[in-house]
Amino acid sequence: MREHKIILPPDDIYPVDPWRIVQTEFLDQFMPHNETVFSVSNGYLGLRGNVDEGKPTFQRGTFINGFFESFPINYGEKAFGFAETGQSMVNVPDAKIIKLYVDDEPFYLPVAHLLKYERALNMKEALLERELLWETPTGKQVLIHSTRMVSMEYRHLAVIRYNLTVLNAAANIILSSKLIHFEDEQFEHSAIHDPRKAGRFESPVFDIELQRHRDNRMIYGYRTKQSGMTMGCGVDHIIQTENVFNQHVTKAEHEVKIIYNIYAKPNSPIEITKFITYHTSRSADPRDLSDRCERTLSNAIDMGYQKIVDDQRVYMSKFWDISDIEIKTRDPRVQQMMRFNLFHVWQAAARAEGTGIGARGLTGSAYDGHYFWDTEIFVLPFLIYTEPRIARNLLKFRHSILNKARTRARQVNQKGALFPWRTINGEESSAYFAAGTAQYHINADIMYALRKYVDATEDTAFMDDYGVEMLIDTARLWYDLGAFPHGSNGEFHIHGVTGPDEYTAIVNNNLYTNMMARRNLHNAVTAVQQLQDNSPKKFIKLLRETRLEPEEIEEWKKAADGMYIPYDKEAEIHPQDDNFLKRDVWDFKNTPESKYPLLLNYHPLVLYRHQVIKQADVVMAMFLLNEEFTPYEKKRNFDYYDPLTTGDSSLSACAQGIMAAELGYDDLAERYFRHNILIDFADVGGNVADGAHIAAMGGAWLCAIYGIAGFRDDNGAFSFDPHLGGYVEHLKFSLVLRGRTVDIEMNQKETRYSMRAGSNFIIKHRGEEVALKPKESVTMSNAPA
Amino acid sequence: MREHKIILPPDDIYPVDPWRIVQTEFLDQFMPHNETVFSVSNGYLGLRGNVDEGKPTFQRGTFINGFFESFPINYGEKAFGFAETGQSMVNVPDAKIIKLYVDDEPFYLPVAHLLKYERALNMKEALLERELLWETPTGKQVLIHSTRMVSMEYRHLAVIRYNLTVLNAAANIILSSKLIHFEDEQFEHSAIHDPRKAGRFESPVFDIELQRHRDNRMIYGYRTKQSGMTMGCGVDHIIQTENVFNQHVTKAEHEVKIIYNIYAKPNSPIEITKFITYHTSRSADPRDLSDRCERTLSNAIDMGYQKIVDDQRVYMSKFWDISDIEIKTRDPRVQQMMRFNLFHVWQAAARAEGTGIGARGLTGSAYDGHYFWDTEIFVLPFLIYTEPRIARNLLKFRHSILNKARTRARQVNQKGALFPWRTINGEESSAYFAAGTAQYHINADIMYALRKYVDATEDTAFMDDYGVEMLIDTARLWYDLGAFPHGSNGEFHIHGVTGPDEYTAIVNNNLYTNMMARRNLHNAVTAVQQLQDNSPKKFIKLLRETRLEPEEIEEWKKAADGMYIPYDKEAEIHPQDDNFLKRDVWDFKNTPESKYPLLLNYHPLVLYRHQVIKQADVVMAMFLLNEEFTPYEKKRNFDYYDPLTTGDSSLSACAQGIMAAELGYDDLAERYFRHNILIDFADVGGNVADGAHIAAMGGAWLCAIYGIAGFRDDNGAFSFDPHLGGYVEHLKFSLVLRGRTVDIEMNQKETRYSMRAGSNFIIKHRGEEVALKPKESVTMSNAPA
Repeated sequence: MREHKIILPPDDIYPVDPWRIVQTEFLDQFMPHNETVFSVSNGYLGLRGNVDEGKPTFQRGTFINGFFESFPINYGEKAFGFAETGQSMVNVPDAKIIKLYVDDEPFYLPVAHLLKYERALNMKEALLERELLWETPTGKQVLIHSTRMVSMEYRHLAVIRYNLTVLNAAANIILSSKLIHFEDEQFEHSAIHDPRKAGRFESPVFDIELQRHRDNRMIYGYRTKQSGMTMGCGVDHIIQTENVFNQHVTKAEHEVKIIYNIYAKPNSPIEITKFITYHTSRSADPRDLSDRCERTLSNAIDMGYQKIVDDQRVYMSKFWDISDIEIKTRDPRVQQMMRFNLFHVWQAAARAEGTGIGARGLTGSAYDGHYFWDTEIFVLPFLIYTEPRIARNLLKFRHSILNKARTRARQVNQKGALFPWRTINGEESSAYFAAGTAQYHINADIMYALRKYVDATEDTAFMDDYGVEMLIDTARLWYDLGAFPHGSNGEFHIHGVTGPDEYTAIVNNNLYTNMMARRNLHNAVTAVQQLQDNSPKKFIKLLRETRLEPEEIEEWKKAADGMYIPYDKEAEIHPQDDNFLKRDVWDFKNTPESKYPLLLNYHPLVLYRHQVIKQADVVMAMFLLNEEFTPYEKKRNFDYYDPLTTGDSSLSACAQGIMAAELGYDDLAERYFRHNILIDFADVGGNVADGAHIAAMGGAWLCAIYGIAGFRDDNGAFSFDPHLGGYVEHLKFSLVLRGRTVDIEMNQKETRYSMRAGSNFIIKHRGEEVALKPKESVTMSNAPA
Repeated sequence: MREHKIILPPDDIYPVDPWRIVQTEFLDQFMPHNETVFSVSNGYLGLRGNVDEGKPTFQRGTFINGFFESFPINYGEKAFGFAETGQSMVNVPDAKIIKLYVDDEPFYLPVAHLLKYERALNMKEALLERELLWETPTGKQVLIHSTRMVSMEYRHLAVIRYNLTVLNAAANIILSSKLIHFEDEQFEHSAIHDPRKAGRFESPVFDIELQRHRDNRMIYGYRTKQSGMTMGCGVDHIIQTENVFNQHVTKAEHEVKIIYNIYAKPNSPIEITKFITYHTSRSADPRDLSDRCERTLSNAIDMGYQKIVDDQRVYMSKFWDISDIEIKTRDPRVQQMMRFNLFHVWQAAARAEGTGIGARGLTGSAYDGHYFWDTEIFVLPFLIYTEPRIARNLLKFRHSILNKARTRARQVNQKGALFPWRTINGEESSAYFAAGTAQYHINADIMYALRKYVDATEDTAFMDDYGVEMLIDTARLWYDLGAFPHGSNGEFHIHGVTGPDEYTAIVNNNLYTNMMARRNLHNAVTAVQQLQDNSPKKFIKLLRETRLEPEEIEEWKKAADGMYIPYDKEAEIHPQDDNFLKRDVWDFKNTPESKYPLLLNYHPLVLYRHQVIKQADVVMAMFLLNEEFTPYEKKRNFDYYDPLTTGDSSLSACAQGIMAAELGYDDLAERYFRHNILIDFADVGGNVADGAHIAAMGGAWLCAIYGIAGFRDDNGAFSFDPHLGGYVEHLKFSLVLRGRTVDIEMNQKETRYSMRAGSNFIIKHRGEEVALKPKESVTMSNAPA
């Protein structure tokens, strides 16, 4: 492995805490990083961790999953079938800012004299809390406590409580509660220099179509200029103080604010609760959305702040009850970071209903908020085995865009359906096809996750109602894409594709793609046959809808059975593609650290010409298709590919770590594990300011469960083979296996399996069958048999 | 070969004429086509064949070679090393329009009642002439004769003579002589949907920095907004009539005009001569350029119209004297078309001093006026063997951008120099690297032309002063780009490149590239050694400047000697690249005619996945590197590749035709020849409205000389092997061979070689040596030996 330098933020300012991310001193240079780290969201609405006052800021951000503006994609030279329309997650109007003035002195963190400061992301309860004591230039001490939350229970609701006490004097207080429609600074319109960042729009993307003001409430209706999506945003306030002597509204083009003038008596708390709601739609009338905003706000105020917080606690305790991973190593930071990763995945996924999960969740606008294969391959396993209902929602979203995938297949001259490499609304939005549309493997990735979901949950109804149809049209694409070349003796080849490793593009017979496509084809055959057996009525309906011909099933079988799997007998490895081994090995020795990530320092032609890997490809296949490789093949492949892998993608370390664990490379496994769980907090990639790497965070769960616990779920059979290495003292987690909740606790010596709920069930521990019974525990040795 | 339907414009309206292109009726639907066909230019300044009145028009166009505006290239997703700045040839202020009103009735061709109409491109004298008789709605008959020319002798000068007689009445005449700064219609700002068209700018690309008016003269100074290039444009008029009763200047933002009100007596000619000049610069003060304009105009007026026309005749007669091809076939159109092709190449090249030749010359703005390999491979041979001085200018232009090519090599992480795939100012301007920067072969193409030039002219001084330096840095690029792969036994491989065929991209060991690179490396070795032998002083200077190390020569030798040449023993052909034969053959049978060109109907991934060829690749290599293939190899390769070649590029037919002739496929050779010489006049590609295909026109010369006459110049030894097929009755042309002018005349039976000037010389005729002596002729039989 290439050694990535991991530099954690200083321990004295970011102390270790098992359930919180804490910052004890405001540091300007960590501000961009913290805006991401301290984000709160529920998968629908996300508030970036900007300071309450709005400034200073790296990027003020409020995001709504699936809410995008569209734009024509520019090409210097365009060709047939290139994606036409881009989509970019909108940074929506921002309602979270409350600006404070004391005796006309603005509270501004970088210059404020702070006697106390603590900001904490309370992961247990999904609250962002800040407490500080500010001494104004005139010596007045102001104690401020604020809490920010995006409600998990009430999807459209966010609440901020802002509590303020002048301890030692009276003072004139101004609280300016804002709704910012758009940034007033010059908008940037730039070509994207770092391909991983998002583009920006030239001008405000919204028209304001409606505004209502009444007492402490304001409601605004918006419509995006190009995509025509609509949004209502409402804000209401409850002020707890008797001393408001003036309250008025100020409007500017880019923002509106309600200004409260308050006379603060010494040591007498002032409390403002700000209720925020968003309702969005593809096309609904903003007036209707505004009515919904009115109702959400009224309900929230009726319930009151305390009930909303209590509900948040209940919701989150249910989450942690099933999803928490307790892990003990010599480094206490590991426990905190494990939860940090799980928490952010949860925040990205919990209420993502009818959408996917953006590459950076709702914490930043990198990658334009697009959905990639990240969701299915890196995030879904966690949800499948802890909150399968959410996994189902995400797979159902893919079904909802199946028609667009069919259209896309036509656009690239293929039959069946081709899921977009990156999208929000289902249309391909990749502007560089070599590392976009050419990654046909996304079809198989989604189908892989579908199969895993059904195997883990036995939700055959989902397979029948949504899954089979997707399997049919993805299988059709593979069959049409590949071919039985002349003289290949029935071998099925797939040419001109790009695998997961984007440092190699448009190759023939990418191992990962061929093997995953084979799985896709087999699963299609099986699912169609099962539907026919189990539900002839549904089967007939599907036949009609998809015009499926019996010969197609035969074709898929033939293609799957004949699938060509590249193997080099001499090297005893699986080549990543037909040409991979013919390339020169990258000159790693003479590549200084400053040249990484390579994609920012070498032309694609140079990268494509060498054996150098951005992210696990063959190694990824070995993780996903575990049972299709012998232990010897795994070792040979891993030994060959691991040193070639730069890890320039955050999606790489988890598969490498899991395979290292399986192969008994304990030190390496530990390093990948640490690397993986620290990616965001330690900002390993240097770009966490643009948002959290949700897939890598899902990878942290994979690393723990598939890596350390050695969980395997080949073909729906569940087994464990713990690899705690020298560094994990204790690991405890729960999985939902076919409706049964199983708690698993392991240490260096033994593993205890306890079934919390459900009926008798058999799993395997290190090859040995273990019969689980309700409310009972079984303890197994971790020593070699 | 794929049968291209060739539909010629109707013979009755475009009658055959050996020296002119004639149109006898104004037809709206041929207007876009005619604007290209009737263009006049001298290689520096080009006037598109717009009607004198300016409207109707498809594209009003006036172009200056090398005069461009720049813009940032947009990428939906950008990566390291992508070209940053685009360049686009500017459609410069247009001074050629003279609008006519008779009794306030505007003369407008589409509705005018014409009693007579003839427009003719006089190719012999390089004049565009129009004569027509217009009957106005009130029955007045107006005889108009106009002549438009761009002077060959006086590079910065164009002249229009407009002659008008009202035959049967008196009339009030208005002549409005315009200088149009920019189009007043809405500017189009569009992504480029057809990759072969040029982009447009959003707003006028110029600022007007200066204006002067005096009597009949106006001078304007301009500066482009982004590239900062400067231009002076001057116009002056001489009016031959006594009856101008009013003359005034009208200015608008987008144009200025001098309006002449004339009282026309019956049958009394009115003559206006409009002198137009352009001076341009990278950065000179527009005032200086305007002064130059003043001088050019004053000189022109001093000389007078007649002398300028006389000089044009002399200049052109010199050209035709050496460059004409007389060809007799059963179709008299062939003679006309042959001259049409030669004439347009000449117009594109004659005064292209310090620049290259744009893909469409100065006849249209397609391909943004960029210089490609077209110049060296398709146009230069004609010039080398007829006007070597011009060939030298064009090669010297390449030397002038050598430093930028060095910079470009660095940008794509390579040593040496990499010439840009498309450029005006020397910087890479290709926005799609797979069919742009990846075409490294342009390095070898330029060096191939250099060698041909030196071999044909013995201009070793040019080699010493400019050539060797280019050879060194192109050889360096090849050596750095390729590698001796492990286990290849000293074979030198070149990976990750695109050959001439753009339906296949980024491949390993493209045959064309490898063979041309080998030639490049060998020529570098030879040239350095010759310089050392012949001119030790220059050699030492060059060593210092290029820091050449003796080991480098050894390396180049090793790479050239070890160059891997793909050959498939079973198929007995040279594969186009390592993977070409593994691809499925395109399903030509089920591809309807409407799907051609394929690039406008199939995604690149689909094209890249198949054996389907846009333009000759292996066949091109066989033409250029004739002596490196055995006759049997040529036949095997041609038979294999020709049916796979769509000819979707206009650059394809000439190499295919030449090889077909050599192989004795007479019918095929004829078809390719006809296809090639008719590409523009018959608008075979459907896009001649955007400009003439100058390279294909150069290809017409290649087809005649290398194809029909069977000329070969391997390593500077000249030979002929006539292939007149059944269709050429007579062919006559001249070549300049090492300073000797040789006239060659052949028919079905025999070939006569006559040396017009120069010393004794030996050539080969069908393998037999022929000794040529000054002023003597030798006649050889064309019958097989």
